[in-house]
Amino acid sequence: MVKVAVVGASGYTGVELIRLLLSHPGVVITCVTSRQNAGENITAVFPSLLGRIALACDPVDPALIAAKADFVFTALPHQSAMEVVPELLAAGRKVVDLSADYRLREVSVYEAWYSRHTSADLLAEAVYGLPELYRSQIAGARLVANPGCYPTSVALALAPLLRAGLIDPGTLIIDSKSGTSGAGRSAKVDSLFCEVNEGFKAYGVASHRHTPEIEQTLTDLAGAKVVVNFTPHLLPVNRGILSTCYASLKTEMTTQELVTAFQQHYSGEPFVRVNPAGSLPNVAFVRGSNYCDLGVVGDPRTGRVIVVSTIDNLVKGAAGQAVQNMNLMLGFEESAGLTALPVFP
Amino acid sequence: MVKVAVVGASGYTGVELIRLLLSHPGVVITCVTSRQNAGENITAVFPSLLGRIALACDPVDPALIAAKADFVFTALPHQSAMEVVPELLAAGRKVVDLSADYRLREVSVYEAWYSRHTSADLLAEAVYGLPELYRSQIAGARLVANPGCYPTSVALALAPLLRAGLIDPGTLIIDSKSGTSGAGRSAKVDSLFCEVNEGFKAYGVASHRHTPEIEQTLTDLAGAKVVVNFTPHLLPVNRGILSTCYASLKTEMTTQELVTAFQQHYSGEPFVRVNPAGSLPNVAFVRGSNYCDLGVVGDPRTGRVIVVSTIDNLVKGAAGQAVQNMNLMLGFEESAGLTALPVFP
Amino acid sequence: MVKVAVVGASGYTGVELIRLLLSHPGVVITCVTSRQNAGENITAVFPSLLGRIALACDPVDPALIAAKADFVFTALPHQSAMEVVPELLAAGRKVVDLSADYRLREVSVYEAWYSRHTSADLLAEAVYGLPELYRSQIAGARLVANPGCYPTSVALALAPLLRAGLIDPGTLIIDSKSGTSGAGRSAKVDSLFCEVNEGFKAYGVASHRHTPEIEQTLTDLAGAKVVVNFTPHLLPVNRGILSTCYASLKTEMTTQELVTAFQQHYSGEPFVRVNPAGSLPNVAFVRGSNYCDLGVVGDPRTGRVIVVSTIDNLVKGAAGQAVQNMNLMLGFEESAGLTALPVFP
Amino acid sequence: MVKVAVVGASGYTGVELIRLLLSHPGVVITCVTSRQNAGENITAVFPSLLGRIALACDPVDPALIAAKADFVFTALPHQSAMEVVPELLAAGRKVVDLSADYRLREVSVYEAWYSRHTSADLLAEAVYGLPELYRSQIAGARLVANPGCYPTSVALALAPLLRAGLIDPGTLIIDSKSGTSGAGRSAKVDSLFCEVNEGFKAYGVASHRHTPEIEQTLTDLAGAKVVVNFTPHLLPVNRGILSTCYASLKTEMTTQELVTAFQQHYSGEPFVRVNPAGSLPNVAFVRGSNYCDLGVVGDPRTGRVIVVSTIDNLVKGAAGQAVQNMNLMLGFEESAGLTALPVFP
Repeated sequence: MVKVAVVGASGYTGVELIRLLLSHPGVVITCVTSRQNAGENITAVFPSLLGRIALACDPVDPALIAAKADFVFTALPHQSAMEVVPELLAAGRKVVDLSADYRLREVSVYEAWYSRHTSADLLAEAVYGLPELYRSQIAGARLVANPGCYPTSVALALAPLLRAGLIDPGTLIIDSKSGTSGAGRSAKVDSLFCEVNEGFKAYGVASHRHTPEIEQTLTDLAGAKVVVNFTPHLLPVNRGILSTCYASLKTEMTTQELVTAFQQHYSGEPFVRVNPAGSLPNVAFVRGSNYCDLGVVGDPRTGRVIVVSTIDNLVKGAAGQAVQNMNLMLGFEESAGLTALPVFP
Repeated sequence: MVKVAVVGASGYTGVELIRLLLSHPGVVITCVTSRQNAGENITAVFPSLLGRIALACDPVDPALIAAKADFVFTALPHQSAMEVVPELLAAGRKVVDLSADYRLREVSVYEAWYSRHTSADLLAEAVYGLPELYRSQIAGARLVANPGCYPTSVALALAPLLRAGLIDPGTLIIDSKSGTSGAGRSAKVDSLFCEVNEGFKAYGVASHRHTPEIEQTLTDLAGAKVVVNFTPHLLPVNRGILSTCYASLKTEMTTQELVTAFQQHYSGEPFVRVNPAGSLPNVAFVRGSNYCDLGVVGDPRTGRVIVVSTIDNLVKGAAGQAVQNMNLMLGFEESAGLTALPVFP
Repeated sequence: MVKVAVVGASGYTGVELIRLLLSHPGVVITCVTSRQNAGENITAVFPSLLGRIALACDPVDPALIAAKADFVFTALPHQSAMEVVPELLAAGRKVVDLSADYRLREVSVYEAWYSRHTSADLLAEAVYGLPELYRSQIAGARLVANPGCYPTSVALALAPLLRAGLIDPGTLIIDSKSGTSGAGRSAKVDSLFCEVNEGFKAYGVASHRHTPEIEQTLTDLAGAKVVVNFTPHLLPVNRGILSTCYASLKTEMTTQELVTAFQQHYSGEPFVRVNPAGSLPNVAFVRGSNYCDLGVVGDPRTGRVIVVSTIDNLVKGAAGQAVQNMNLMLGFEESAGLTALPVFP
Repeated sequence: MVKVAVVGASGYTGVELIRLLLSHPGVVITCVTSRQNAGENITAVFPSLLGRIALACDPVDPALIAAKADFVFTALPHQSAMEVVPELLAAGRKVVDLSADYRLREVSVYEAWYSRHTSADLLAEAVYGLPELYRSQIAGARLVANPGCYPTSVALALAPLLRAGLIDPGTLIIDSKSGTSGAGRSAKVDSLFCEVNEGFKAYGVASHRHTPEIEQTLTDLAGAKVVVNFTPHLLPVNRGILSTCYASLKTEMTTQELVTAFQQHYSGEPFVRVNPAGSLPNVAFVRGSNYCDLGVVGDPRTGRVIVVSTIDNLVKGAAGQAVQNMNLMLGFEESAGLTALPVFP
């Protein structure tokens, strides 16, 4: 059994990592950390875990973590991750970092959208952890930058179109909607039940930090610079992202032709499901699972294609994908610990 | 006091009409009809109305309705409305019809997207009931076709841009999200709580019946044929539509310039509120009210404008707009019965 | 027009007071205060109010408030209210206080369940603002202590039974469920959307501070000391309290006999609606309104009566009842500003 | 691998059985049936299952089912189950029936609360499938009557008190709240999203059919006839039951003494978790899992004990308990297929 640590265990991504790792056949959680709950048992923070784990939260101390675990998940806010990751790597630990700190290859882009980067030397080494696109690089990596939730939903939606050159990248518009767990577990008025429930809003229009991450991956896929409009919205559900993506087709294609192209592209992928023509995904059908569901429609009236993708933002959009990356990095079966079915309803 | 009838009172639009009309200073409800609840008191159908009205539901009989009321709201499914509206008009009653039956000017378009039209002779006379665009025609009409909920949210979002020729209409993409009351009150598995709650999906992609209605109004505004992509989604909230609209600007404009243009366009309108730059609407802030809130952002990276509009689909998107139309048709103050503030939270 | 102030305007009770007072025919809001939003326009805090009011938030300064307004609503946390109420009264202003500070007649009870009382001299003068029980005293008061939300729902549910001596008070069990707006608008992890949504829990079991307030009123009604079990629960809805009350009947009564007794007891009350036998209330049917709906069932198998009461915790449970009290204190029609119908769905 | 059938697969209990059984190491689903979806692939009914099963729905034909499977779960409405169970048993199949048809030992009680019983000869043989109370009998049974969701939550809450004679059974009051999946997946107006969301109501007061089932088990536990008040309420969540149970203690006990008694009673039980003193359960903490969480409080002011229990109504309240029973009947590890952790948030 590989000893693993969950750094930043008191957030929603942290508890989801614990949930998944406790069902994993090849690992044992030996360390959980939390700044605000240091000293408390993690079951007091999350009673859902009662009877399944009994660890007190450690402070966020890289030496202590490296002493307790061989493999580390860092689920910290951006800026905080880069304060601990270098030391963990230096101690010989492999790391999946779930923050934004190692996702962007260009330090200047990071500094334009986030803030100063103090660990830029690791950017060249870090591998972007989207297994469907970068599987072989992930397997050999020491440091994997786990993708953002929105970028995961978008990259999987558009890869078949961009790889095959079927669309004009200049026409791409991405309208995304995320469940509220994506906003994290810190106490903010904007995330209160009464502010979110029965509400719906756009936010970060033309300015959300996931934009450069999306563009970096789409640029890889298109082989040429891609610039997009990306608009996130806040959904009154706990879990789930749905991205609706629009682009002009270079040549007309029917819905059935598009579906077939998607099914061939993702043939053999364990976690991508392509809906049959006429059927479209729903965040409810991936809840609690590592699936990304895709639906695609061609519109002969406008010459556009519409792709709808859904993931559970805490699983394929965060903790599940992190475990998938760990599986690749440690040579486990890629789906180990990730076979739970969606919980519907 | 003008005697009014609500035909189709047992649906969500019906009960919302009753709620608003009971607060209207110039009318009295003298007739409510319901096929499935005929004979029952409307307060047994909707206990929210207890103590405020005491009418048994009549069957849907135009002669009976015309005998009891001077002004009629028909809140029936499409196809059913055209079975009663001609007789009501013939009896000298004024009508606001909330179905789709009289919204499209071209009978061929109606028949392509809906089904056969048996009352096409009234199409030329019917006025499309969006007061912000067609106020003077409404005032003189016998028959007003109350707009669809999605088309209302879209037309108000785009009117300032299309009227002023600021965007390329060929680039228009409309991504809309509607609360579940828009799906009506009939018993369907798809509308069950457990199917909708904690879920989110697109539907009617590239095929929704509101598309030609949207295009008809946008064509009026642009002065040239407009074809759009319109994608509706189902939100797990009771009330509210949010439409996110994308288009390429003909010349670059800042967010502040766009906001100013919108504020000037809607200056004096009682029910359209334009958010200041940097602020965006939320369906929660219009709930229960007749407001349409608008937010606008210019994106210098892509040269596009993004407009976000919110309405309560049952008020400005249905019953409230119908009362606003009645006010114009009967010479009441336009905001009579519609001054209630949004209910937040 | 009477000039009124809303002290503590940035909470949910504050915005609800503003919503109701803006529809009131006899008052004008001349002052709103907020500690954390001082200087901001109240419409920036609550965009639902956009276009209907334009006041900057003042700091909580009694002299300033008294200078701007003739009548004051204090919607502050307990302990904070008693810091401003004495000075407002001394300045000749009438006050409805929505905190717990003046609800309990015995200072020792307040100090046992809350903390030290620094304004105990006003307790004898303060009138408990439940109009259905204390209407005449309210009309003559300078200081009205607006009841808690739970106690309102419970007192109205049990008054007909206790006044008529139909039940054994020693058997009273009260199981209450409240919407989340009752927890206030301060940023706490426990009130986050993801903690509350899809959840349900009991809290404050055998220890909630509304217990002595409930017992004080029930003791008044019974004419003898009443001690109860009161268990609150947190409902994943924005608004609404439902209390299910159980007691042993002294002599057997049918459901119809009980319903009749309730209807007679509340005959003429503008804001209490008794459901017919066989029908039970739902928080959805009072949402946004000042109604308290009651349903009652007799159980011949156990000899108990079950009363179910519903209110909107922000209206009849707070702001609406406060306006009702103001109406009595200022000689307005008791229902002025409170005639809006419930918003369903 | 044991071949199992899920009869009534298109309901919420059906899909939950499939979800759990697909993760079970010792069984394979060889037959699913559905009246309304006969002929359709079950993945078309529930896209959450896409890629994990590919079976067309059979009609409900006992001979066909018995030919395809060795073990059968019948998840049919009451009255329908008794039409197929006898034939399945006669064909030598073991059955867990999730309807109410075989839960009540007395045919007269069944006929008083439900309707005529046509399979009464099997009542003596059927074992009530609550493993924590009847484990050994279940292991040897051919036919297990899976308990109702409410009765499960209540029996586990009260067993430690009744077995030890700590309370007066005549004072028992049970106030339960259930998520909406408990109402099933048939198309009814009362179960529509807009009717349930933001609502809360009691139903079946003093008349719910789970009452005699609850009383039968509590009578077993108490060793003397128990009659209770049981009031169910409808919660606007998909999953979860919380029961709040009140009774008078025979002798005063502190909360800590009560918690200790509960922990000792359930020591070694794999699916019952007792919260430490001061902590209370939340339906969110058992979602998707087979756990029953219990919290207990003693109230020295009233001499009563309050027990709060939570389960996921579709798991421990239905499909999970059914799998637990199957495990006992077939000699599998009792927790096989049931080890998934709760999904929070």
